[in-house]
Amino acid sequence: MPTYKAPVEDVQFLLNDVFHVERYDNLPGFADASPDVVEAILSEAAKFAEEVLAPLNRVGDLEGCTRHPDGRVSTPKGFKEAYKQLCDGGWLGLSAPAEYGGQGLPATLNTCVSEFLISANMAFAMYSGLVQGAVSAILIHGDDAQKKTFLPKMVAGEWAGTMNLTEPHCGTDLGLLRTKAAPQPDGSYKITGTKIFISGGEQDLTDNIIHLVLARIDGAPAGTKGISLFVVPKMSLKPDGTLAGPNGVSCGSIEHKMGIHGNSTCVMNYEDATGWLVGEANRGLNAMFTMMNHARLGVGLQGLALSEVAYQNAATYAKERLQGRALNGPAYPDKPADPIIVHPDIRRVLMSIRAFNEAARALVLWMALNGDVAHRSEDAKAREASDDLMGLLTPVIKGVLTDTGFANTVLAQQVFGGHGYIAEHGMEQFVRDARIAMIYEGANGIQALDLVGRKLPKDGGRAIMAFFAEVQSYMKDHASDAALKPYLDPLGKALGHLQQATMWFMQNAMKAPDNAGAGATDYMHLFGLVALGYMWCRIVEAANAKLANGANGNADRLKTKLVTGRFFVERLLPETAAHLARIEAGAKSTMELPVEAF
Amino acid sequence: MPTYKAPVEDVQFLLNDVFHVERYDNLPGFADASPDVVEAILSEAAKFAEEVLAPLNRVGDLEGCTRHPDGRVSTPKGFKEAYKQLCDGGWLGLSAPAEYGGQGLPATLNTCVSEFLISANMAFAMYSGLVQGAVSAILIHGDDAQKKTFLPKMVAGEWAGTMNLTEPHCGTDLGLLRTKAAPQPDGSYKITGTKIFISGGEQDLTDNIIHLVLARIDGAPAGTKGISLFVVPKMSLKPDGTLAGPNGVSCGSIEHKMGIHGNSTCVMNYEDATGWLVGEANRGLNAMFTMMNHARLGVGLQGLALSEVAYQNAATYAKERLQGRALNGPAYPDKPADPIIVHPDIRRVLMSIRAFNEAARALVLWMALNGDVAHRSEDAKAREASDDLMGLLTPVIKGVLTDTGFANTVLAQQVFGGHGYIAEHGMEQFVRDARIAMIYEGANGIQALDLVGRKLPKDGGRAIMAFFAEVQSYMKDHASDAALKPYLDPLGKALGHLQQATMWFMQNAMKAPDNAGAGATDYMHLFGLVALGYMWCRIVEAANAKLANGANGNADRLKTKLVTGRFFVERLLPETAAHLARIEAGAKSTMELPVEAF
Repeated sequence: MPTYKAPVEDVQFLLNDVFHVERYDNLPGFADASPDVVEAILSEAAKFAEEVLAPLNRVGDLEGCTRHPDGRVSTPKGFKEAYKQLCDGGWLGLSAPAEYGGQGLPATLNTCVSEFLISANMAFAMYSGLVQGAVSAILIHGDDAQKKTFLPKMVAGEWAGTMNLTEPHCGTDLGLLRTKAAPQPDGSYKITGTKIFISGGEQDLTDNIIHLVLARIDGAPAGTKGISLFVVPKMSLKPDGTLAGPNGVSCGSIEHKMGIHGNSTCVMNYEDATGWLVGEANRGLNAMFTMMNHARLGVGLQGLALSEVAYQNAATYAKERLQGRALNGPAYPDKPADPIIVHPDIRRVLMSIRAFNEAARALVLWMALNGDVAHRSEDAKAREASDDLMGLLTPVIKGVLTDTGFANTVLAQQVFGGHGYIAEHGMEQFVRDARIAMIYEGANGIQALDLVGRKLPKDGGRAIMAFFAEVQSYMKDHASDAALKPYLDPLGKALGHLQQATMWFMQNAMKAPDNAGAGATDYMHLFGLVALGYMWCRIVEAANAKLANGANGNADRLKTKLVTGRFFVERLLPETAAHLARIEAGAKSTMELPVEAF
Repeated sequence: MPTYKAPVEDVQFLLNDVFHVERYDNLPGFADASPDVVEAILSEAAKFAEEVLAPLNRVGDLEGCTRHPDGRVSTPKGFKEAYKQLCDGGWLGLSAPAEYGGQGLPATLNTCVSEFLISANMAFAMYSGLVQGAVSAILIHGDDAQKKTFLPKMVAGEWAGTMNLTEPHCGTDLGLLRTKAAPQPDGSYKITGTKIFISGGEQDLTDNIIHLVLARIDGAPAGTKGISLFVVPKMSLKPDGTLAGPNGVSCGSIEHKMGIHGNSTCVMNYEDATGWLVGEANRGLNAMFTMMNHARLGVGLQGLALSEVAYQNAATYAKERLQGRALNGPAYPDKPADPIIVHPDIRRVLMSIRAFNEAARALVLWMALNGDVAHRSEDAKAREASDDLMGLLTPVIKGVLTDTGFANTVLAQQVFGGHGYIAEHGMEQFVRDARIAMIYEGANGIQALDLVGRKLPKDGGRAIMAFFAEVQSYMKDHASDAALKPYLDPLGKALGHLQQATMWFMQNAMKAPDNAGAGATDYMHLFGLVALGYMWCRIVEAANAKLANGANGNADRLKTKLVTGRFFVERLLPETAAHLARIEAGAKSTMELPVEAF
């Protein structure tokens, strides 16, 4: 059975020493999040994740969800009780506004907690993650009545939330969607259509489920400009907000899938279900993007979270499993064999995962802090800058953290040899669970296109120029720091590759957009490596500063940062050159074959 | 439901036009394999794979194997009948010696057929692949009585074969094994111990199962030098060779695993089971390596075979699924959306897989031909050269074809978006099935170590020097071929990286072997890219020659080779630089952290 230990200290190091969270105290909610409050919250969350959720992870995989003939869906044994604990602990409302029952703490803190929950039990954490996404969307786009009706119950966890976008014939291309909304005299709409791949579409955890549904109002334009967003509760509500009876929403079937068995993936049938318009008519995609962006960062976090728990178990196994001898002679001559962690190829695997995880966590928290600035700051310029950075980095975090996170679960599984392939060790479940994160909320190829086709050129390239400027000014500010030079030099080289690739797109993709399309995924990963390399410089800088200040008993842990960061720049960062070479090869050989040759 | 179409024409092109199989006609069996015989055999095999085995693939995954309380194991519905068809068709004995009932055809032809069977149904093909491996081992190491007793039944398919190496506490490090062999007065041994991960250890396909078992004779030295190989039939034999009664072998349980559910992975308990020594006492590892090398090439082939079938299904889906529009305007304005194959990122995926598959198939067949030379040639120098090349390339084929083959199944799954994650489309099964190939028959990290630590320095580097000489003389011979230059130049650069890496090991790993260990996996992949790049040059050369000769109506197909080869050198080959950079980084940051830091 795999185990999990939440990286509480690493999160605190990032918040306090790398990102100096106290500098954000002018934002609402941050002053309440003093270091001791943060420590208490993280410790409690860790305990809940480690002791309640982690033991249910394999149960959830084995048992899966069951749809009963009447359309009800049961979640795996223990999920209901754990979900109640989650709600009772107030975890769903950690960063929700106080007026709806939340604690108003930084969303950044919620991100830290989410990593723990996902590592412990991804299928479970999806239920709560989707509620939080739906809360965001209603908060921003809903009217006062909708907020008052839905948010308190959702923040408390009594009601869940879902996103309903995909239909059988349309996933990425939402312009094709067919679900209809017929206006009613009372201002509501009758929603009719079929949605697929709806995570948590039906379950037995909550009394009600608030579905956010994309549909086309009768007579609306074809394509994406005729799509509206509706809120459709599973159970109709009486005027006082209590449950009336079933609305016309039902789960037609649940999918048999590769992983995340503990989460019900439903086909949802809407038959004249009553719903209400959220935001403006025909502007549904806009509203849904609020939820999508929240969800995309959450999905990136899933990549990291599974990479982390897979790493932990591989490291433990590598220290325990005795097999063979170190290449330069027995390390433990008294034992029948050495633990496999003495072998450089095993170390390579462990270090590769770790060097990614620690920087990925930094990147996620940096983005989360920018999210808090974008949503809470009173300074319009600061909001704009943070919003730019988030827009630019959301596809990078979603695409790179899930691609690499998945690859890392495969690497970690490999450490177990044949035992990694056997279900009872749990490593293969991490691989199966992590796989979905590369697909949903926009398959990673779409993330890459979003980055290259939309985010790069947006506002005349303002966001990418600001990113370059930030990294360059950091390098300039620390140019005389000799201890940082071995990290800064490779970062500079990698940044050069990213700039060259950006320039190449500007020169070659305007007239021939396939040149951008064919290089998009490589560009996304090149970008990710630069962003992670930048994070490593900031981590090493912080570790050095702390070491110079006496390290507070943490010297050993801080020194690991220096080594792991060096591994990153020596072993993972050189990949930027290969990405650049592929981008500069252009689209010709990619696109040249006629369709019938495939 | 996924479908499969065996690449018969591609195999014929490789045999006839790239490798000029007629030049091998001096070897036993090759003259019988005239082009029309080969065509007939490949077509029959294709039909069997496509029509009988492929439809059972998903059945096998869903149903899996069942162990009954009495220790019997049932394979999935339909496997038994299909296995009988396989045996009746003579497929098991295609390249086995005529004196044991085989057809004596080239082993190369058997390799071609095996790819088809594996693509169609990997779990099924493992049963027959293991019989063939056991036949090889007994052919080479068994005595006459053993050959006479076992081989005719095994070649006919009436009896199966297995390899029994792993024990709960020892996989890679066989020196730790504990299974005992007690000598008996009649010359037999009583075998006692527990073996795990035994593929096909028990099944209902055959009347008897011939287990090849590693065990330690009482009083033998500790470590790998005290291990002997035994043949242990599941059913004891009467003196006339017919079945007597059960021997002391039983299946204690079967594993629940990530994939290959149709193949029973057994814990095998030996309790005073009667066995006979195969080959010399204490030289069991040697004998087992015959089987292992056969099996390693077979496992490499699994990587290719799953990459191929996954590619085919992704290509079909990409041509059918309508979603979005081409970047430079609608390609099919009359349809509601374009098929996703118009998108460069989808093309990138398909081309990446295909550019690997076609060269990997060439590499496998080139090795298979060398195998036939090594086993059948009367020319001692030719045998030595082929044996050297096989020794060198076996870990490369096993490691690179399974790592990349698995990665390709993941890429192909991605083309399906959310549908790729759903079991009914079958793409996720390819991923789960392909995953094991990176692990068994020596995890890929072990292949890399075998390459770097054993195969490179062997005989003073004779094999690697011969490989370099072969590629260099090819490049020299074709230096004036302008049409080949765009392929030769990148190959030359990649070869330079490989030579530089080899030199780096010579200079840095003698005294510090961790430097070799930390770079081994990168070296293996660097080697693989060079070998595949070399194959692409030979493929393109052959395609150009055929095009110049009128192409025989195949011009379109031959031209795809030119484009796909260019994609390979532009998009996949540049990775060699990153591998070299990682190798030259050495072991320091990989090994520096203390064990307790993990």
